This record gives sequence, C-alpha cells and structure tokens, in this order.
Amino acid sequence: MKKIKEVATDEIFDAFLLIKQADVRVAKNGKKFIAFTFQDNSGSIDGKYWDASEEEISRFTAGKVVFLNGKRELYQGRPQVKILHLRLTQEDEPSSPELFMTRAPLTKDAMMEEINQVLFEITQAHWQRIVRHILNQYQKEFFEYPAAKRNHHAFAGGLAYHTLTMMRIAKSMCSIYPEINASLLYAGVILHDIGKVIELSGAVTTEYTLEGNLLGHLVIVDEEITKACQTLKIDDHEEDVLLLKHMVLSHHGLLEYGSPVRPKVMEAEILHQIDNMDASIQMMLGALDQVKPGEYTERIFGLDNRNFYRPLD
Amino acid sequence: MKKIKEVATDEIFDAFLLIKQADVRVAKNGKKFIAFTFQDNSGSIDGKYWDASEEEISRFTAGKVVFLNGKRELYQGRPQVKILHLRLTQEDEPSSPELFMTRAPLTKDAMMEEINQVLFEITQAHWQRIVRHILNQYQKEFFEYPAAKRNHHAFAGGLAYHTLTMMRIAKSMCSIYPEINASLLYAGVILHDIGKVIELSGAVTTEYTLEGNLLGHLVIVDEEITKACQTLKIDDHEEDVLLLKHMVLSHHGLLEYGSPVRPKVMEAEILHQIDNMDASIQMMLGALDQVKPGEYTERIFGLDNRNFYRPLD
Amino acid sequence: MKKIKEVATDEIFDAFLLIKQADVRVAKNGKKFIAFTFQDNSGSIDGKYWDASEEEISRFTAGKVVFLNGKRELYQGRPQVKILHLRLTQEDEPSSPELFMTRAPLTKDAMMEEINQVLFEITQAHWQRIVRHILNQYQKEFFEYPAAKRNHHAFAGGLAYHTLTMMRIAKSMCSIYPEINASLLYAGVILHDIGKVIELSGAVTTEYTLEGNLLGHLVIVDEEITKACQTLKIDDHEEDVLLLKHMVLSHHGLLEYGSPVRPKVMEAEILHQIDNMDASIQMMLGALDQVKPGEYTERIFGLDNRNFYRPLD
Amino acid sequence: MKKIKEVATDEIFDAFLLIKQADVRVAKNGKKFIAFTFQDNSGSIDGKYWDASEEEISRFTAGKVVFLNGKRELYQGRPQVKILHLRLTQEDEPSSPELFMTRAPLTKDAMMEEINQVLFEITQAHWQRIVRHILNQYQKEFFEYPAAKRNHHAFAGGLAYHTLTMMRIAKSMCSIYPEINASLLYAGVILHDIGKVIELSGAVTTEYTLEGNLLGHLVIVDEEITKACQTLKIDDHEEDVLLLKHMVLSHHGLLEYGSPVRPKVMEAEILHQIDNMDASIQMMLGALDQVKPGEYTERIFGLDNRNFYRPLD
Amino acid sequence: MKKIKEVATDEIFDAFLLIKQADVRVAKNGKKFIAFTFQDNSGSIDGKYWDASEEEISRFTAGKVVFLNGKRELYQGRPQVKILHLRLTQEDEPSSPELFMTRAPLTKDAMMEEINQVLFEITQAHWQRIVRHILNQYQKEFFEYPAAKRNHHAFAGGLAYHTLTMMRIAKSMCSIYPEINASLLYAGVILHDIGKVIELSGAVTTEYTLEGNLLGHLVIVDEEITKACQTLKIDDHEEDVLLLKHMVLSHHGLLEYGSPVRPKVMEAEILHQIDNMDASIQMMLGALDQVKPGEYTERIFGLDNRNFYRPLD
Amino acid sequence: MKKIKEVATDEIFDAFLLIKQADVRVAKNGKKFIAFTFQDNSGSIDGKYWDASEEEISRFTAGKVVFLNGKRELYQGRPQVKILHLRLTQEDEPSSPELFMTRAPLTKDAMMEEINQVLFEITQAHWQRIVRHILNQYQKEFFEYPAAKRNHHAFAGGLAYHTLTMMRIAKSMCSIYPEINASLLYAGVILHDIGKVIELSGAVTTEYTLEGNLLGHLVIVDEEITKACQTLKIDDHEEDVLLLKHMVLSHHGLLEYGSPVRPKVMEAEILHQIDNMDASIQMMLGALDQVKPGEYTERIFGLDNRNFYRPLD
Repeated sequence: MKKIKEVATDEIFDAFLLIKQADVRVAKNGKKFIAFTFQDNSGSIDGKYWDASEEEISRFTAGKVVFLNGKRELYQGRPQVKILHLRLTQEDEPSSPELFMTRAPLTKDAMMEEINQVLFEITQAHWQRIVRHILNQYQKEFFEYPAAKRNHHAFAGGLAYHTLTMMRIAKSMCSIYPEINASLLYAGVILHDIGKVIELSGAVTTEYTLEGNLLGHLVIVDEEITKACQTLKIDDHEEDVLLLKHMVLSHHGLLEYGSPVRPKVMEAEILHQIDNMDASIQMMLGALDQVKPGEYTERIFGLDNRNFYRPLD
Repeated sequence: MKKIKEVATDEIFDAFLLIKQADVRVAKNGKKFIAFTFQDNSGSIDGKYWDASEEEISRFTAGKVVFLNGKRELYQGRPQVKILHLRLTQEDEPSSPELFMTRAPLTKDAMMEEINQVLFEITQAHWQRIVRHILNQYQKEFFEYPAAKRNHHAFAGGLAYHTLTMMRIAKSMCSIYPEINASLLYAGVILHDIGKVIELSGAVTTEYTLEGNLLGHLVIVDEEITKACQTLKIDDHEEDVLLLKHMVLSHHGLLEYGSPVRPKVMEAEILHQIDNMDASIQMMLGALDQVKPGEYTERIFGLDNRNFYRPLD
Repeated sequence: MKKIKEVATDEIFDAFLLIKQADVRVAKNGKKFIAFTFQDNSGSIDGKYWDASEEEISRFTAGKVVFLNGKRELYQGRPQVKILHLRLTQEDEPSSPELFMTRAPLTKDAMMEEINQVLFEITQAHWQRIVRHILNQYQKEFFEYPAAKRNHHAFAGGLAYHTLTMMRIAKSMCSIYPEINASLLYAGVILHDIGKVIELSGAVTTEYTLEGNLLGHLVIVDEEITKACQTLKIDDHEEDVLLLKHMVLSHHGLLEYGSPVRPKVMEAEILHQIDNMDASIQMMLGALDQVKPGEYTERIFGLDNRNFYRPLD
Repeated sequence: MKKIKEVATDEIFDAFLLIKQADVRVAKNGKKFIAFTFQDNSGSIDGKYWDASEEEISRFTAGKVVFLNGKRELYQGRPQVKILHLRLTQEDEPSSPELFMTRAPLTKDAMMEEINQVLFEITQAHWQRIVRHILNQYQKEFFEYPAAKRNHHAFAGGLAYHTLTMMRIAKSMCSIYPEINASLLYAGVILHDIGKVIELSGAVTTEYTLEGNLLGHLVIVDEEITKACQTLKIDDHEEDVLLLKHMVLSHHGLLEYGSPVRPKVMEAEILHQIDNMDASIQMMLGALDQVKPGEYTERIFGLDNRNFYRPLD
Repeated sequence: MKKIKEVATDEIFDAFLLIKQADVRVAKNGKKFIAFTFQDNSGSIDGKYWDASEEEISRFTAGKVVFLNGKRELYQGRPQVKILHLRLTQEDEPSSPELFMTRAPLTKDAMMEEINQVLFEITQAHWQRIVRHILNQYQKEFFEYPAAKRNHHAFAGGLAYHTLTMMRIAKSMCSIYPEINASLLYAGVILHDIGKVIELSGAVTTEYTLEGNLLGHLVIVDEEITKACQTLKIDDHEEDVLLLKHMVLSHHGLLEYGSPVRPKVMEAEILHQIDNMDASIQMMLGALDQVKPGEYTERIFGLDNRNFYRPLD
Repeated sequence: MKKIKEVATDEIFDAFLLIKQADVRVAKNGKKFIAFTFQDNSGSIDGKYWDASEEEISRFTAGKVVFLNGKRELYQGRPQVKILHLRLTQEDEPSSPELFMTRAPLTKDAMMEEINQVLFEITQAHWQRIVRHILNQYQKEFFEYPAAKRNHHAFAGGLAYHTLTMMRIAKSMCSIYPEINASLLYAGVILHDIGKVIELSGAVTTEYTLEGNLLGHLVIVDEEITKACQTLKIDDHEEDVLLLKHMVLSHHGLLEYGSPVRPKVMEAEILHQIDNMDASIQMMLGALDQVKPGEYTERIFGLDNRNFYRPLD
C-alpha cells in the first residue's frame, strides 16, 4: 500500500490512516459533514466526509485508525482526498496510532545515546546534577513529545531531536569561540524546552494544557529547577543556579516573545540564537520539501509569513 | 532645624542629613570632587564638594549621617545646595539612617492591621494558606522595602503602602462588580510585588540584586509559591494554584513589560489595571507636589515621559 | 414562548423576534438568500433563508418583527437557527422593536436617578451648568443609545449604563485619593462619551453617521461645550472650560486611539483609566457569560484579541 | 555694521541685537552666568556672560535690544560669541524688537494680496464665508505669527508664508488633477494651521499657551468654525461644514501625529501631503543654507533626525 | 455591444471579453469550477463557470478572448456575472488581447512626446546621457508595462503614465522652489520605476519575475546605471553618478518600504514625496470612480486600508 | 614600556601612542583645549590637553605618533590620562601608525590561507570565478579594513577576521545540515561585507565615504558582481548570479536594517543568522573583556543597549 506522500494527483488509492483531526460542520445545504485530517508516517492530507450521520460522527473521531479508499485531488492548489469509502480497521489490521505518526529522523535510542554523551561534558557539578535529575524525571516524555503544536519540529520525538541538533551547533560554537562556558551552554540547551512536556498534552493530538496556557514552558522549567534544588539540597539562591535558571527564562530572546528577562549573560544570548537558528532551518527544510525546484513554498508563519524559493538544481 | 523642603532658595541653613549617594568625579581642573545627594525625611537635594582630599572621600560615603551648613540655590532650574561646611555627626547627635528616610504616609502598624483584615476575606483555603505563609516569611522586608528603585513608591514602606492602596481599589471593584472572585483578586494584590524583597537590596541604598536582574520579581514570586506548596503539601499542578501563579506572572499586562504570559483570567486583567492605576496616581501626585498651581511638572519617565499641568486653585 | 438564550441545541422552537440585520447574498448555486441576525431581549442568533424571492427580500428587512419557527443548531461551534417557517407578525401580535432589544440591567429611571444625584456633587459652577445643559439637551438619546456599535455596552441604554458604572469607580477613587478634584472627574465622566448620540445612528440598527466618521465623538463633545458656553455666556478661553474640554478630548489616552492630545491633567489620566477598566470588565463579563466553567471564551477584539479562561467553580 | 551671518570666525565685531533667550545658570565655580541667544534678522548666535551680578541679570532679559562688542568663535563645531562688552541700547539707537526678527521672504502685503486672490476661487458659498470670517478675525496674527516654535517656518510671518507656498502647490495639483474639488482644498489650506494664533503666544518669544497644550491647534480651528457657523447662521451639521472641519482635523494624516481622525476624503489626504511637502522642503532648505557644498547638514528633528548632503556645485 | 462598465445590475448582455484570470477550483459538491476574471478596456468583472469539464478547463485559459452571454448581478455588494453562455471567439471576431486591456488615458505617442520634451531640460550631461541610454534600451516596455501588479496604475501604459503625472508635479515644484536641482529631479523621476520592466512579467498577466523577487526594482535600476556607465565610459564613482543612483535607491523613502538607504539629498526626499502623492491620488480616484456620491469606497490596501467618502455633489 | 591596557589606575607612565582623534574645543574659561583619544595595539584612552596654543593644535593632529608622559586616572568611572608631557616622536623613535592599531588576533597570512582553502570548496563555477575576481581586486583592503567604524570588529583586519569566523560557523552548519548548498553559503559569506572596502575610508581614521552614505555596502557589492559578470562574460540575468546577489542584498535580514529584500532563499536566511551570531559574540567578548568577574559590562549599542553580566569564575 502507498504512503500519503507517494500518491499522485488524481490517483485512486487504498490506505490505513490515523484520524488526526475530525471537525463536524454544517454545510450550506444544512447537512453535517466531517472535515478530516488523515495522517500516516509520511505526511498528512485533508478530506471532507459529506452528509455525515450522527452515528458516523461518533464513530470517526480523532485518534482512530481507519481504512480509506479515496482519490487524491488538488483544491485551490493544495492536495486533498475525495473520500470514496471509509471504515474503521478490523481486528487483524493495524490499529495503533503510534504506527501513523511522523517521527524524528533519528531513533529514540540514537538520540538518547548522543544526549547522554553530552552530560559528561557538563563539568560543573550542580548543573550536571540538576540536568540529570530533571531529564530522568521526564525521560519518557522528552523523547516522545513534539517540540510544538505546529510550526517547527511538530512530530513525535521532535522535542529531543530539536535539542539534539541545537546541541550539535552548540558544540561547534564552543570549539570556534573557546571563551564560551560549555557546561552552562550545554545545560541550557538540554533544559530550555523541557517544560513542553507539561505545556503540551502529548504527541498524538497535541494541545496546550491549562498549565501551559497560564504559566508557559519557560516558567515551568524554572519551577522544575526550584524543585530539583530542594530535592538535591542545592541552595537555589547561589549564582550557579541563578545562571541556569536565567538561561531557560531568557531563551526566547525578547520580552515580546515571552521571556520575562532578556539575556544578560553571553551564553544565554548564544542559546537564544542557536534555538532560533535550528527552528528556522527546520521550518524552511520542511516547507521546501513540499515543493519542486523552481517553485516557492507556502508562507511560513513562524518566519514572519515569508515564502522561500527553491532554486533549480 | 529646618527640613530640606522648608528651606527657601538662597537661604543659608544648618541640617542633619543622610548621604544617599556620593559619587567621586574629576573636575575640569583635574581635581577630584564629590557629587552628593543628601536626604532627610522631607525630601532630597544635590550638592558638590570641590577639591576633595582622599581622606574626605573615604570619610563621606553613602549611608553616613552628616551635619551640613549650606546655601540653597537654583542650578538650571533645579535646587542644589552650595556646601559651606560639612562634618560627620558627633556622639550626641542623630546618626541612624532610618531617621532620614522618606516614608509611607501610614505607619507600619496601621498598614499591617489593614492588610491582616483582608486576609480573612480570602476565603479559598489554599490561597489563604499560601498568602499567609509567604507574608509571614517576608513580613519584615515587606513593610520596610520601597516598591521600586525609583519611579513610583520609591520610599521606605512603599511596597506595603502600594499594596494597601491597591487593596482599597480592589475592594471597591468587588463591590461594584460582584462577578469578580474577591479571594483571587485579594490574594493576587498581596503577592503581586512581594518578589521585590528579593529583587531589590533594601530601603537605604536600593539596587537590583543579581537574582533580581537574572530572574525578575515576577518569577521570584512564582518560585516562592512553588516552595510554599511543597512546605504546605499543596499539589501545585491543581487549578487553584495555577490561577494564583498566573495572577502574579501576568500582572505586568503585556509581554513587553516583562510578563511571560498575558492575563487570561478576568481577575488577572483587573489586577494589572489596578496596579497601573495606583502607580500612575502615585507618580502624578509626587510630581505635582513639587510644583505650584499654574505650573507643569517635570517629565515623568514612568508615564511615557509626559509632564502634567497643575490647575490653578 | 422561550427566549433565544433558553433554547437548547437541536431544539425546535417558536419565537417572536426582531430582525437586526438582513443581508442579501447570492449562494454558490446562483440563487439569492438572506443572512439574518434575529434578536430578542435575551440575546441574538444568526440564520440563513435560502432561495429568497424578490418579494421575500423586500418583506423581511432589518427593523421588522417576525414570527419564527426554527431549530437551533451548532455551525462551526457557533449557534445558528435553521429556519423552518418565517412570517411577519400579525395585528394582535407584538410588533414594537423596542420589546426585542437587549437592555442595560438597570431601568432608565434608576440610572437617571443615580446620575442626577451626582450632578449635585459637581460643585464648580461652570462645570455644573455646562454638564446640566448638555445632558438636558440630549437626555432622551443619552439613556437610550448603546455605548458602541459592537464591542462593549452594545445594548440599548448602554451609554448611560457605562457612564454609571464608571461613575461608581470614580467615586471610589475620590474617596481613596482625596487629592483628586471630584467635580472635574465627575463632569468628565458624564460628558466623555455623550458625543456618541451624534456619532451613532441610534439603538436599533446602529451605524456610524457621516458626522461620526468625519469628526469623531471626542470632537463632537468639544463642539457641544463650545456651543453651551455661548448659550450660557461662559468665556470658553477660561481655564476651567479648557480643563473640561481637555478631559473629553484626551480620554482615549493615546493619540493612536484617537485623542488629539494625551492627558496632561491628573483627572484626565484617571478618567482614561476608569473608562478602560469598565469597558474591559464589561467585555470580559459578556464573553465569559457565553461559556461554561473550564472553557475559554471567544477571542475579544477590544482586548487585543485575547481569549479568557473561565475557572472551574 | 555687520549682520550676524556676515561675521567670520575669530572676527571681532559690533552689533545691535535682540536678546531672544537669557537663561541664568550657576557655573562650576559657584558663580552665576547668563546663557544668551542673540538674534538679528540674518540669524542668531549663542554667547555666555560670566560672573553676572544680580543687577545685570535683571537688566539683560529676553526681548531687550542690546549693543554688543564680541568675537565670533567655534565651540564644538558650532559658532558662538565671546562677549567682550554688552550694554542696553541708548535713546537714539534702534530698540524695537521687530527690527531684529527673522522674517518670511515676502512682505505682509504681498502675502495678503496673493491669499486674497485665492479667496475668489473658493466658489462654494459656505466655505467662502467661513474662511473670510475667520481670516478677518485673526488677520493681524495670521500675518505675524510663526508656523511653529521651532522646526519649520519658525520666523515672523512664517504661518502666512507656509500657507502661501502650500497654496501654490495646491493650485498646481488642481490643474494636474482636475477631479480635485479646488474650493474645498483651498479653504482647507487657508484654515488648516490658523489655530496656531491661539496655540502659540506670538512671534517674539514663542511658547505654547495653556489652550494650545490642552486642546491643540486642530481642535481650536474646529471650534472657530463652530462659532463662525453660529454667527453666520450656517447649520453646522450640514455636509459641507462637516467636510471643511474634517479637512482641518485630519490634516496631520495619522492619529499618532495628533489628528483625531485620519483623512477620509480625497482632498483631506492631499492637504495632508501638501503640508508635509512644504514643511519638509522648508526644513531642508533652512538646514542646507547653513552648510557649504560637499558638507552634511545637522540632523533635522522634524525629518526623523536625518541629516542631508549638500552636493558639490 | 456594451462595455462591462455600462451594463446595469440584473441586465442580460453579450460581450467580447479577455480572460484575465482563470482559476480552477473544486466546489463543495466535489465538482470542478472555473473562477474567471473577464476584462475589457472599460474594466473587469468576476464570474464562476460551474461543473467545468477537463476539456473546458483547457479551452478557457487566461489570455484567451471569448464571447460571453451573461447577467450582471450583485454578490455581497460586488458585481459579478452569471455566465449563461461562453465560447471562444471565431475567425471574424476580435481576438487580440491588446484590444481588451485597460489603458492609460493618454496615448503612447502623447506620453512619449511629453517625456521627450523633458529630456532637454536635463542639462547635466552625464545624467542626460544615462537617462537617454536606459530609456532607449527599454522604450518599448516602458510605454507598455503597468506600474504595478495591482494597487495603483495597474493598467497597460501605467508605468509611463505614472512617470508623466509625477513629472508634471516635479515641474511645478521646481517653479515654486527654485533651489531644487531640476535636472536631478527630472532624471530621478524618469528612472525611478523603470526597473519594473524587469521586475514584472508584462502587461497582460502581470507577475513578479524571479529577478524582481530576489533583487527588487530599485536595485535593478542601480545595476542598469552601472552598466550604462560602463558602456558610456562614465566613471561611476563620481559624485554625479552616485547622486543619480541615490535618487533611485532611496525613492521608497523608508527602509521598511524597501529602500536600502533613506533620502539624504533634498531632491531624493522630494522625489519620494511626489511618487507617494501621485500613487495615492491615482488609488483614490480609481476607488471613488466605483461608487456614487454619498457612498464610501472599498478599503484601499495601499492607503493603510482606509476607505474614502465621496461627497455629495 | 607598558601598553595602555597594562597601566594601573593612578600610575604615572611613558608611552609611544598614536593620536586616533584630536578634537579642538573651547573650555568654560574661554581657552581652547584638545580632546585626544590615544591608541596603541592594546587599546585606547582619552585625555585632555588644556590651554592649547594654535601651534600645538596644528602639531598634534589625528594620525600622528607621539611620546606621552601621563597619569592614568578614573573620571566618572572611565579611565582617562592626565597629560603631564606630550611631544611628537623623534627620528629614531617609532612613527608608523600601523604599529599602534589594534588588530585581529590572526595574522593577515593566516587569514588569507584559511580563506583560500575555502575557495576550493565553492564548486559552482560562476560563483567561484566571481568570488575570486572580486577578492583579487580588493585583496589588500579586505585584509586591512575593519568591519565597522565602531561596534563589532572595529579593528584593523576586522573585516577579514569577521569573515573568517563566520566561515567557521558556516562550515559547521553545512556538516550538521547537509541540505544546505555549501557553495552558495560560502560564496555569500566571503562577499557579504566586502563592500565595506568602498563604504569606509580605511583602517586608521575610519569614516563613511560619500559612496557609503548614498548607496550602502550591500548595493556596492551588488554593483561589483554586475561588473564582474561583464568582465567575466557571465550573463547576470541567470539564476545562479541572481542567487549570489540575493545572498548579499538580503543579509541584513530585515528591511529596517537596510536590506532591500528579505531572505527568500534558505542559504540567505542562514547567512544572515551567522552574521548576526558572530557580530553579537564579538561585541559581547569585547565588552566582557573590559570588566571583572561579578561585574556588568557597559551597555552595548549594537545589542539593543543591553549590558551583560560576567559570572564569577
């Protein structure tokens, strides 16, 4: 069976797919329809299910795995699927949502291995203990969650993958500019976004939690460091702890982007710029991958709504 | 003896004064001088001490109390004192810096009384326990610290006084709009700025601490609530705790002003507006008090650098 | 018969309703339909009338009262009515638009009484005479008009009700800060928005008038004060008149919000903040009233497009 | 005797001059000095008078005419005069301040003549009567006042001269774009800044009046039109009057620049742009006149603080 | 046969029209339709062609001339045509797209004549030679291209027409302010937008070229001047060439509008303001022409989304 | 002899120094003095020369090398030198300005070597030829000029050094993200700032040239590429040339920062971010180097006027 990304326009195809979103709406003729987003691990596609009965509405909900017979079409320049037949999967067919999620290009084990290597390079004792403590506590979520609801790294494992590529840049920077405090920068990279495991609801149908909305992931990490210090008997008024907290709190760079303080330490400014760099590249690569050489991408919200040109080869 | 505020221009006077600031500079003739700011509980005045010897420089430092014989003059429209004679106070003369600080118009006891009354009106159990816990812990500083290094309520006891007048507005608002959750608003009023006892260095020569610079007073309170919950065995992932933290974190109203999240709960928006209202009025009253009817005040930094007209009586 | 707000989703109901808006559009099938907004004094609801004939289009216009048989449904998360039958009301049925308007929670008489009380507290003679003169002239409209076309206080009597709750805050402020000139603040509160009786077209199908568009309600009030002074033989170059005009002209606070001058007098700044406070609270209360505890409101345009969380009880 | 502009650097000269400004300050040695700005009709120059006695301070005040013997020098790149001798003028010497003011390059009569010609081209009756009425009332001030305290056209007669050159542009525009309503545009040009005769204190030592500060010159003209309508028995709710008021109120173009409404009529937008054009050119010409070919001007506040290059001939 | 602009609402008409745009979309019923924009030299109108077959989709494409039988209707306040019959034109019917384009109100010859006259008034030798060289090179496109894809002067010949009306203003300005360097201003007017002949794809279905997107028309002209200098053996580091390039590069006035430098020479600032003036007036005239006296225009994107009132006659 | 940086406060010292700046001013006593900035290759220091004669003023000018006997002091927290004796250097003493300039930490040869290595990795033929051509043409200036008049890399060789460290980051990025077109990125890095050799006047007393002010270094490089293409017979309308020009033109990232186009190609966005990263780090390192652990730096203009904390070791 073909993956979503492999189906050509106007081709009729069969596929097992995960229902990522299922919004019920009323059509202009007064009847209800379901606006679906289907997903497999190659990508996603929208499709409308007309004249949906109440029974169908309660059967086809987000998180279910379905078997679809449909035709891929273009609607206002964007691919969508015309649904010819739709049913839930049966007993001997694939049914686990995990099989249909887009994933980071590295395995969880590979990522864990690479990040663990770095822990040894955090040579300042308090920072190492705090980072290990928090990472242990949220290890499962850290390697499973996306880095965002949409925009960049919005796939399973995205949080860890984003952390990993940032770490690679961070290591280059430390070798180019030996004045950088590598322990501080690496500790900041690992912790900077880990609050997302509380801010977001998970990898499958990612939403902001109440805690995410009311506190934000920056403050959430700050609280985790506070708690870790209490557990580890580290005085959290000491300069080293303040520096680590500052790395996390200031990493959005500007107050307008939600940091309560702007970077006031060199490593904090660098962390912010590395974060920005990796997120931008990931967004551009993702968008460029959807178009052919000689074409422009869709406008990218996270990059000031710019579109990008993919040069001819 | 006259207070600073009572001395007329061109009048020669004697006074005991606190040295608030003492900056050593080099004059155009190559000799050193000290640029003083003197203070008593009626106000403050600048004055220069020419041709200062090294011994004098180390004798007349910030925080010392002195006896001054001088002449009040106008320099570019601002009052300053021409120093005729200056010496440290002697044994039987006043020497405690506390005597020379400008203070809130209410006594510490009166403020404590009024705030304690309000604690009973916080009827939600968790909020009451958390507020009492933190207030107890920082009670001494809370009633002694200013609310800011400069701008509004920059006098001893200013933090508590600002909290108090905000509380009076808050109580009016709750009676005008009965839909407001009074417990939440009152708890927010009391805690909103209490992080300043860690952000600032104290009442006498107020500076930002490293913790203040790297974390900011909003996040500092958030951490205090986190710790209070651990001590009081309250689950800090519960909605009531999140709401209280959100009140504090969002009370600057806009991200640009240092809140990591904007108000997303009605009481948080109201807290922000009450804070703004009281701070504005205090700044305007302070500036108008310096001019006569029919004149304009100096430009007020905290009010977008506007100056205000004091109408004729 | 049920009110709009009492009808449950998917319930079929009968109701007398006022047509608030009736826009004729062409459907995708080329036929015309009418996009209605119906209203009674409990709220409003949208509904589409398909395949409308020319005769029906000219029969069902804004301002008419109709009898509707319909079914309440949800369309993209917002309630709408599916029109089953629609006719104009007959002779013995209710037909006055006034019966179907949402109204301020206080009666006109109660509001008039409360505002008249305040007039006695404006002890400065010129301000009192000017306020009385203008209030007398536009009394009928003042107690009938909404405070805005949409956003806050967009209901019949909204202008007076907004003025009234602002006055309650103003009175609290004067008792908390005795330095405020109460006469000036109260006069400013009453006049600040009264220009809306000329800027807007009325309570039923509220639109901006040409005068509103070309001059704005701030300048309109300024002109009314100018005329009142001529009638009352008051010299409008005197400081007291200038102050009153300044209160009105500056009450939007910022040039960007349409004030030709920013507040330069303390009472003007306070008037601006009270206006802001009451409008914000009214918008939040209105939006929160539409959702259940644990839910978020729609985004509120007048509050920088934020949505608000309604806490669990 | 030479004019200020004709004296070379390091030249000693005699001159009758008007004291434009005389600020008393205290020098670093504790003695008072007067910081003068002297002026004749060719320009102005600063100079300091050291060790001033109280008697001299009360003798040499702004508005007095003096005889000066001094030396022109450069101080931090700007010309100033070293005062060698200074005295008040005697009986048979020039003493009228008017003789020493910089003036518009056209005589009052020439300007009056040219503006009167235009009045005939305002063919709409109400506009013509209103413009004539207001112009008659403030004729003396209109031809004497500057157009601003500083920035552009800050010389005697500047208000009328600015109006005149704008009118010349306006006439060109009407011939290039025949769709423009010339009567409306010409009426707007004449009235747009006439409120400055109330906003400013006069031509000699120009300050903002209280009325200028609290209302602004846009609203002041609006009030004058309101009064003119009452006197002339013209209904000021008619569209033609609204249009004329709108021209004046919107001519700053943006709310941020103090217009309570943005231009909503084509002629109002054009008036705004013509005003901008003439003011910009006047500021650039004034600044370029102070430098030689191949040099840059000082930064011009009214043009976003840009400096301009004067090309080689 | 009637022109588009002459057909009344609800009138059935026959017309030869150019297909300006033809977007294929999928309707809610799953079938394809074509969203057309038809055009003749009086204006343009939209219309939908339902249930389009693949053959029809490939037959009716942008750039084709068709015969249409249709009915003009109003859809959400905007005119559109209900297509009753549609076919390609036949052999003896009009088929050249040129016949159906809206055009500048002056003929190409008249514009060329008027612009050639001005060339003689550019008396500086280098500027004249460079302008002539570039104008010769792109003469055909210059008199055929629009000045923009949409917004102002978006019609055939719009680029030359915009240049021409700007030149008329420029000549007035030079006569009102004799200090302006007329040669420099005229050279700047002619060259300022000529890069659009490379930035845009042409007059019929105007799109941005890759060169337009990656460099922009300001830099494109700068390069053309560089090349012209090489051809004409003019040293492009000389001040006169730098001035001419600066005119072009800075004419958008603000960095935010795409100028790499802000105007630093008086003539450059004036060029910017003239450009702005002519573009604004053209946009307002275009929009006002679509509405009746007493109505408001649509919101104009290029004028900060404002709408304008067309006064009663 | 000690270097400037090695002299302690209040120490008397001898040194050969370069006069970097020599501004003549008039003191409050009416006499002239020279405000010097002296420089050696360890840093710079200010000092005033009182009562300067005309002869001394013409002897001690910027660019001269002098022998100084002076005392290092602190003036308002900043070091300055009290000049005890000053004379020009004599025949057998050092006199070449080059000896006294602060320099990049790498030698010219080392930088040239490293950059030449990279040229081989630009495998696209046109880009390589263009880069080589321009680099050859300006090789001398490229390795001698600073990267800016002040702010970052404002030392001799700064332009090449900035390019070099950026190149090191660029190479890391290409290895972390293999999708990047390395040839394009490397070519962009080398050319991006090379226009500064025309925009600035040189390494000794760096000023902006007229060409720099009127065109800016981005457009200057664009012109150089245009000329290179003509010389090398490369069609400059081809996509590869457009891409290279776009890299240079867009590398300031935002229109507000002077790029006429924002990055529309992934490599251009990355170039902008690398430029920003290296400039920020250089500014922070420079400022942190001036303070001790536990102190804050001065505010850094190029980093939004922030100051940075240097952590305790």
